[in-house]
Amino acid sequence: MSEEIVVIFSGGMDSYTLLNKALRDDLKVSAVTFNYGQRHVKEIEYAASACLELNVAHKVIDITAINQLLQGSSLTSDIDIPEGHYADENMKSTIVPNRNMILLSLAVGYAISIDARKVFYGAHSGDHAIYPDCRPEFVEKMNNVCAIANYEPVEIVTPYLNYNKGHIIGDGIQMGLDYSKTWSCYNGSDIACGKCGACFERIEAFSCNNIVDPSRYES
Amino acid sequence: MSEEIVVIFSGGMDSYTLLNKALRDDLKVSAVTFNYGQRHVKEIEYAASACLELNVAHKVIDITAINQLLQGSSLTSDIDIPEGHYADENMKSTIVPNRNMILLSLAVGYAISIDARKVFYGAHSGDHAIYPDCRPEFVEKMNNVCAIANYEPVEIVTPYLNYNKGHIIGDGIQMGLDYSKTWSCYNGSDIACGKCGACFERIEAFSCNNIVDPSRYES
Repeated sequence: MSEEIVVIFSGGMDSYTLLNKALRDDLKVSAVTFNYGQRHVKEIEYAASACLELNVAHKVIDITAINQLLQGSSLTSDIDIPEGHYADENMKSTIVPNRNMILLSLAVGYAISIDARKVFYGAHSGDHAIYPDCRPEFVEKMNNVCAIANYEPVEIVTPYLNYNKGHIIGDGIQMGLDYSKTWSCYNGSDIACGKCGACFERIEAFSCNNIVDPSRYES
Repeated sequence: MSEEIVVIFSGGMDSYTLLNKALRDDLKVSAVTFNYGQRHVKEIEYAASACLELNVAHKVIDITAINQLLQGSSLTSDIDIPEGHYADENMKSTIVPNRNMILLSLAVGYAISIDARKVFYGAHSGDHAIYPDCRPEFVEKMNNVCAIANYEPVEIVTPYLNYNKGHIIGDGIQMGLDYSKTWSCYNGSDIACGKCGACFERIEAFSCNNIVDPSRYES
């Protein structure tokens, strides 16, 4: 019988690749997507469509109420999304306070509930510059607590932790993935803006691989 | 200026004592109560009343949606609440998977948002037997990750971690607290059942202090 795992699946490129990789490794995937009030809620539609197509069990959990606690992020408020490179200092406004600890703790609770022992999430090295909760030290220390927080230990697995987005796309292309089925842009428009950190990073990653990005961009 | 802290306040005895202790220590308290679908949602009304009376900033956050992920607990489903001593093996059905990591991670996010550097929660030694996420090792490892998960470190403070409920009530009585303003029973009835683990523990704690419990009990 294949091993049961939970995948935190945003609907973006990284977790889409991760999800597909897990399926190819014959893991039994339960995917979970969180609506935490991100303005790019569009990614959730992409997540749902992908899971339907891949025949993966999928839950979308609405925790938008937590925005009464988590203030100050441009991702979840009407503060302008910054334009520029995803490693620029001004990208810090896209940080949602303690976001990944919150999402991982929920995913770990889910894993305990369904008797899974691993939670996969798509942290990668491109996130290290701006997001403290995507760094190796964070994953290591989360793993230390997740090992003892419940009667059953749960491991947080991050296959791309030390690889960049270019590498992730390379992996995906080898798997034959179609990235038009993913959403990256931080803005909530119908067409990706091409200017925010998430768009910049995506465009750069395709460019590194000399592949044409199937997304349409406003600019 | 007094130091700003977040208190996770359930409306029960332990966190009520903790909250009052923090106020007496001249800390500026922001209290947060979570509706995670507990059947003793009555405790939330007690929490709200207490904060109103104490003039403490209070948020009640509805995260009941997370019960789509967290299955199997008698606290959040129609599984019967077990009767007996709170340290009995059968009390394990009251465990909500990964609950305290979830609530703490949200409280830490809140702390970051309001520029507080400490989150107080009322874990105590009576909980150690059944709940892994109330044990010193859990708090220690949570602190390790909370120190680095955001740009600002947040400390989880648990003054009662190594004391039992009898000690907590002793503290409260010295402060002149009125425990009729708290709710403990795990059942959702109008009157405390007197039979569940939470009632047992409460009754025992008052008894140890030779004090009359102001609660009414069904039995």
